[in-house]
Amino acid sequence: MIATDDIREGEVTVTPPPPTDAGLVFIGRIRTPWRSRGETPRQGSPDGPVCRLEIFEPWTAALAGLDRFTQVQVVYWLHQSRRDLVIQRGHGIDGPRGTFALRSPVRPNPIGISSAALVGIEGSTVLVRGLDCLDETPLIDLKPDRCVHSMAK
Amino acid sequence: MIATDDIREGEVTVTPPPPTDAGLVFIGRIRTPWRSRGETPRQGSPDGPVCRLEIFEPWTAALAGLDRFTQVQVVYWLHQSRRDLVIQRGHGIDGPRGTFALRSPVRPNPIGISSAALVGIEGSTVLVRGLDCLDETPLIDLKPDRCVHSMAK
Repeated sequence: MIATDDIREGEVTVTPPPPTDAGLVFIGRIRTPWRSRGETPRQGSPDGPVCRLEIFEPWTAALAGLDRFTQVQVVYWLHQSRRDLVIQRGHGIDGPRGTFALRSPVRPNPIGISSAALVGIEGSTVLVRGLDCLDETPLIDLKPDRCVHSMAK
Repeated sequence: MIATDDIREGEVTVTPPPPTDAGLVFIGRIRTPWRSRGETPRQGSPDGPVCRLEIFEPWTAALAGLDRFTQVQVVYWLHQSRRDLVIQRGHGIDGPRGTFALRSPVRPNPIGISSAALVGIEGSTVLVRGLDCLDETPLIDLKPDRCVHSMAK
């Protein structure tokens, strides 16, 4: 996460078209310990805190069978990110780079994708480790992970 | 991909809320050899055909530096998928299962996420191998892959 919306040297914005090509529904809300972008880690860790994915109605039935998996792909909406940068400075890299060559949260469609360890399911809440997003981040999808370490129990 | 929109035995639909929580802009178009859902493979292969990601203006500048990577995460909009199934029958599994326990294209927000090998970049077109989506699928994001096999050149 970046801590401010300021533009840095070498960064380039565009006037984007209106985001009306398709519409998303938020299927849940992510609860994490991080309340501001400044305190949010830049990458999730398997040793990180347990975070909660609270699934909204009418989608809770869609969790059936998720407990077969140990690793899930969590897809979320980075609701505080600006969307108009095409060239930006990433953290820990030498100079400005294209947005598609970075995993920055600032992108035309600010979709975050994390692989997280499934800790448990309590009713309509899924417990995971390995996230790096703000508290109250909207959830847009959840699916079994496809990385090589995914395993069905 | 499923070949039809029919409901199968044991599947459950819901009346979903309108998808107006956030809006997407299509940043490009994916060109593949597959023109119908029936002929589309169920999973991409590293030996699969080269597919083309045609990036639209004003986003082409955001490709700068992507050539440092050998593996990219391709995020796309499964525009022919229904969005109302919470319990569904996946291919090759024994019975109905929750949508979040499947990687089916039929989901509340039909977002596809593939890891693909970066073959090359020609102007505003990115060549990749490993996709499994229909020709003309809208592209919504592109970023360096985070799986363990990703490597910056």
